[in-house]
Amino acid sequence: MAEYKLVPFERLQEQFGRLPGIGPKTAARLAYYVLTMPQAEAEKFADAVVQAHKTIRYCKVCCNMTDQEICPICSDPKRDKSVICVVESLQDVLALEKTRELNITYHVLHGLLSPMKGIMPDMLSIKELMNRLKDHQAVKEVIMATNPTIEGEATAMYLSKLIKPLGVRVSRLAYGIPVGCNLEYTDEVTLTRAIHGRSEM
Amino acid sequence: MAEYKLVPFERLQEQFGRLPGIGPKTAARLAYYVLTMPQAEAEKFADAVVQAHKTIRYCKVCCNMTDQEICPICSDPKRDKSVICVVESLQDVLALEKTRELNITYHVLHGLLSPMKGIMPDMLSIKELMNRLKDHQAVKEVIMATNPTIEGEATAMYLSKLIKPLGVRVSRLAYGIPVGCNLEYTDEVTLTRAIHGRSEM
Repeated sequence: MAEYKLVPFERLQEQFGRLPGIGPKTAARLAYYVLTMPQAEAEKFADAVVQAHKTIRYCKVCCNMTDQEICPICSDPKRDKSVICVVESLQDVLALEKTRELNITYHVLHGLLSPMKGIMPDMLSIKELMNRLKDHQAVKEVIMATNPTIEGEATAMYLSKLIKPLGVRVSRLAYGIPVGCNLEYTDEVTLTRAIHGRSEM
Repeated sequence: MAEYKLVPFERLQEQFGRLPGIGPKTAARLAYYVLTMPQAEAEKFADAVVQAHKTIRYCKVCCNMTDQEICPICSDPKRDKSVICVVESLQDVLALEKTRELNITYHVLHGLLSPMKGIMPDMLSIKELMNRLKDHQAVKEVIMATNPTIEGEATAMYLSKLIKPLGVRVSRLAYGIPVGCNLEYTDEVTLTRAIHGRSEM
């Protein structure tokens, strides 16, 4: 009895299976869906993958992903260049920009320090950040907006020790209870931080 | 303040967001992952999508997806052509073939009857199935292996009424408790079916 194999389907399933959070079952479902798409749609999908890769590069100033030499944020004359918000990735920039309230610039590290995973300072865009601080005396404040995880904290601490000697103010995002949350379900560490960081009403 | 937009990223996110079960957050995560892939990997991914679409067609006999004129199952001389197992999709064939115990052929409907969703008999490969039964007097049995859902049942019932007058035996997959399950968590309908379908030990 010949074993039934459908090589193009299996290859597609394997490709989907490499994506983060996609297990073999989901990969099979996605691969099947792509096969049932109209051909033009499938080509549009493939094209979006290739084009994104071809057109996207790193902003020469903030190291964020952009399709231009200098990203729209860094080249915007209305942005306050004296405040740099340091984040881990593009997605953090997108999340912060969604607030529509910030008039700051960013610096994207493309990762967090993690000796366990072998991620050392020279693998992040730290050199570029230090150059920005040295070249432009205009920078007054660096906001550490890395995630409140062990790696995020360690990275913020490391950078803070590098930057403070330059006479630049270094700050950290506030810890506290998320808006709309239920105190009952908030963990002790967050509650402790929220009490220590309380403000006048 | 210029709004920060990264068109190639957004297009990729939109494309991932069209896939079933992928929400905007997951789509953003997948799009970001694809951007951080090496370019060669991204091209391989895109190529798998396009190639799968180009090479896959429908088997002239069983309507299953294949990269040949006639699929390996239908063209295998060792397969028992007298038993046809009717399924909804390619994925069901793959699941049944995983048992490695079946020496039967298939017929893939590419959907299930659903007046609610506007899926009528002429939109499924029912005509092709009837042709197989009429042309080849050799077919002795048709096994209905559609899902045990309302639509799957209705489709099995509809086909059964069409096929029985041809003098071909029509059977349905057994209902019962799944192997390895816990009776406590099995629903009443399944338990009732399992008791009605009990067998001698």
